[in-house]
Amino acid sequence: MPLYRRHLLDVADFTRDEFSLVLDTAGSMREIMDRPISRVPTLRGKTIVNMFYEVSTRTRVSFELAAKNLSADVVNVSAIGSSVEKGESLVDTFQTIQALGADLMVMRHPRAGAPDLAARHLHCGVVNAGDGTRGHPSQALLDLYTVRERLGDIENRKVVIVGDILHSRVARSDVWAFSRLGAHVFLCGPPSLLPDTFRDLMNGDGTVRIEYDLDEAIRDADVVMALRLQKERMTGGLLPDLREYARLWGLNATRLKRAARHALVMHPGPINEGLEIAADVAHGPQSVIEEQVANGVAVRMAILYLLLAGRGPGTA
Amino acid sequence: MPLYRRHLLDVADFTRDEFSLVLDTAGSMREIMDRPISRVPTLRGKTIVNMFYEVSTRTRVSFELAAKNLSADVVNVSAIGSSVEKGESLVDTFQTIQALGADLMVMRHPRAGAPDLAARHLHCGVVNAGDGTRGHPSQALLDLYTVRERLGDIENRKVVIVGDILHSRVARSDVWAFSRLGAHVFLCGPPSLLPDTFRDLMNGDGTVRIEYDLDEAIRDADVVMALRLQKERMTGGLLPDLREYARLWGLNATRLKRAARHALVMHPGPINEGLEIAADVAHGPQSVIEEQVANGVAVRMAILYLLLAGRGPGTA
Amino acid sequence: MPLYRRHLLDVADFTRDEFSLVLDTAGSMREIMDRPISRVPTLRGKTIVNMFYEVSTRTRVSFELAAKNLSADVVNVSAIGSSVEKGESLVDTFQTIQALGADLMVMRHPRAGAPDLAARHLHCGVVNAGDGTRGHPSQALLDLYTVRERLGDIENRKVVIVGDILHSRVARSDVWAFSRLGAHVFLCGPPSLLPDTFRDLMNGDGTVRIEYDLDEAIRDADVVMALRLQKERMTGGLLPDLREYARLWGLNATRLKRAARHALVMHPGPINEGLEIAADVAHGPQSVIEEQVANGVAVRMAILYLLLAGRGPGTA
Repeated sequence: MPLYRRHLLDVADFTRDEFSLVLDTAGSMREIMDRPISRVPTLRGKTIVNMFYEVSTRTRVSFELAAKNLSADVVNVSAIGSSVEKGESLVDTFQTIQALGADLMVMRHPRAGAPDLAARHLHCGVVNAGDGTRGHPSQALLDLYTVRERLGDIENRKVVIVGDILHSRVARSDVWAFSRLGAHVFLCGPPSLLPDTFRDLMNGDGTVRIEYDLDEAIRDADVVMALRLQKERMTGGLLPDLREYARLWGLNATRLKRAARHALVMHPGPINEGLEIAADVAHGPQSVIEEQVANGVAVRMAILYLLLAGRGPGTA
Repeated sequence: MPLYRRHLLDVADFTRDEFSLVLDTAGSMREIMDRPISRVPTLRGKTIVNMFYEVSTRTRVSFELAAKNLSADVVNVSAIGSSVEKGESLVDTFQTIQALGADLMVMRHPRAGAPDLAARHLHCGVVNAGDGTRGHPSQALLDLYTVRERLGDIENRKVVIVGDILHSRVARSDVWAFSRLGAHVFLCGPPSLLPDTFRDLMNGDGTVRIEYDLDEAIRDADVVMALRLQKERMTGGLLPDLREYARLWGLNATRLKRAARHALVMHPGPINEGLEIAADVAHGPQSVIEEQVANGVAVRMAILYLLLAGRGPGTA
Repeated sequence: MPLYRRHLLDVADFTRDEFSLVLDTAGSMREIMDRPISRVPTLRGKTIVNMFYEVSTRTRVSFELAAKNLSADVVNVSAIGSSVEKGESLVDTFQTIQALGADLMVMRHPRAGAPDLAARHLHCGVVNAGDGTRGHPSQALLDLYTVRERLGDIENRKVVIVGDILHSRVARSDVWAFSRLGAHVFLCGPPSLLPDTFRDLMNGDGTVRIEYDLDEAIRDADVVMALRLQKERMTGGLLPDLREYARLWGLNATRLKRAARHALVMHPGPINEGLEIAADVAHGPQSVIEEQVANGVAVRMAILYLLLAGRGPGTA
């Protein structure tokens, strides 16, 4: 079954079949990555342009390595301080990049919807690598992959996401992805970062719940995902005190004991050790944070492959 | 016929035969670009260094993709904020890059003549990717290619270049290129940006003329090329008012009707919509601005090929 | 004989056999570089990540070209202004890069010991490309290679290193390398940049000596290596006056006549012409500064090859 999309803009409208297709394909890619020479010629001659309007080393490098593993050419365009900021409209920049020969554009942008704008004006593919606080679909897909790989299934699992839900594109995409596959998602965090009005995110069918008390939320959880806290929020008055934050919403070893014995500890990185997550938990036996990073390359290989090749990997 | 040059520094001394050679080769490259896998192994093992002392995403990416289409390796050196600015002389920097193994250096520099300085001291090839206000030869070649491709010929065509002629390396190179191939070039713009003393650019044989009134200049034109207006000129007192500029020298639909019915609209990009060119004209049916971008990759493939291989494309 | 190391952190503990192995391998690499197509498939499918926490165009490009000559993939991570500075711990950053699929990390860092920290936490290889004032092992190896290539041997040669010894990682690594291979190393420079306490660098066996008077030190030298003077030292009160510095410790033609007739002039670059070295000496017949640059690529190819392949070059 092919992916009936030319772009990956959001996972909000993904069907269960589409999720399965990407995760199964990522499984094949993981096998390629584990070979002594982790390269296949699948996307030889294809050009992928990384357009990053925000700095994100890990996501950029992850897409770059995914592309290179498939033998695609990669061109990095850091839009920060570059001529693309000299007043040219976004659409003109996109069309120029496409005219230069891009087969696919991977885009990180501070404004929600920028990748959709690109997709509307381009005939080449667009992958959203994070747009404002709206979404980060490849992160949600790698999170799904990691949980399925470790726990075998996602249906009926209790997934707790704790932290700055309000500003987190990761949380948004994960809510869509995990709830669509039948998990029970619990959102947790300080009320200033998880407002009541946030209920618009929820499906209304009770699969997504808000719980401000982490000790409550974490009980018997199968997955606990801590989000990175942007310390800049402090100045905006949204956070009382970092120590207070760590005490109430930080993931530490004592708290983790309330979760299921097999519970996975996740984090999209980079982590603030001792703030949203204690060092011994981040590097402890239940942590799959490094696996998330490695799986991210496999999932992005799957995304690039499905959008650009659409046939079995390993065939030219 | 080979190109009897090791460097591409300027088109001012190009013969008609040399122009034809580059344009014909670019035509072959365009065919390669249109293949499903737009890669040939022609320059495998060659190393091309992009030395950009000014930010120019589109020109850098264009050369990078041209090189990759020919299977050359590309190393990007952004000289802005890098150690090459730590007081080392330009010549020492060039010699270091050459000693590291560069086969060809593509250079953008704010100072006119910097590529010539490099060429005098290096035995590897040098391509001028824009030096100060002096020249931008690959842009002129892609402009020629685009016009020849669309109109069939250049001889006796009326080409109007409008805007900040004074500071434009594109205008300088285009004047040389189009007039050498027999076009009638008309320069147009506000007197402060197109001084009378600018007549030194002209051939003296009447093939290049100055006309301050755009409505006059554009009459029956085959090509109308608007130049990017650097808004910074405002502060220098060279420009009265942006609205006034758009009114008198902006390319809009009404004005364009005075040109020939088949007239091409060109712009080197990035464009300031509504300033030097109206949005509906820039994206209208007569615009070949996107084609210029795509042709730029083909022309740069031709340049790299002719300087580095000198034999038919497709042979290793 | 293989290299019994997974990392290249320092040359301080290198045995003579290890030095020989790297230099001999670099000789084979130099031959590959001189072929019309200077590429071998030896490291195909390997991923090398350049992590530069300081700007250094020449070292970064040298490692990048070395990797590409061996068909490895290269990912550049400039850690300046990137997300790796957003408060994430160094170790977490390293582990992320490794999880992304790096087979080897080349690291430049302002703090001495940063590469050792990486090596302790990673199972992929780490190459120190300069850490604080501690060491720059690949530079010492290319310096050894250049001298051996030119003079045939290193044993009993008189090697004078002049300049800001105090802050120079190049000097530190060169002292270890040359003295281990039996050269007589003389350190020279202003007392403020070559303190008496610097004797801790010396072997105590008389193979490394301090001599403040350059005219004395240079007498019958086989090798004279001038170090780059960081002009910023001026403000720190460590330097009296640049003109005074050039007069007393600058390498000029008159002074060079006191060295052996065959003496080599070396410099790690980039040079301050007229300050630590006169232009006619830097570009004169005894200068091997450009050769150092070219040899640097060969030596780095040898390093990457020995750490990642460990079998004969040219075999996949």
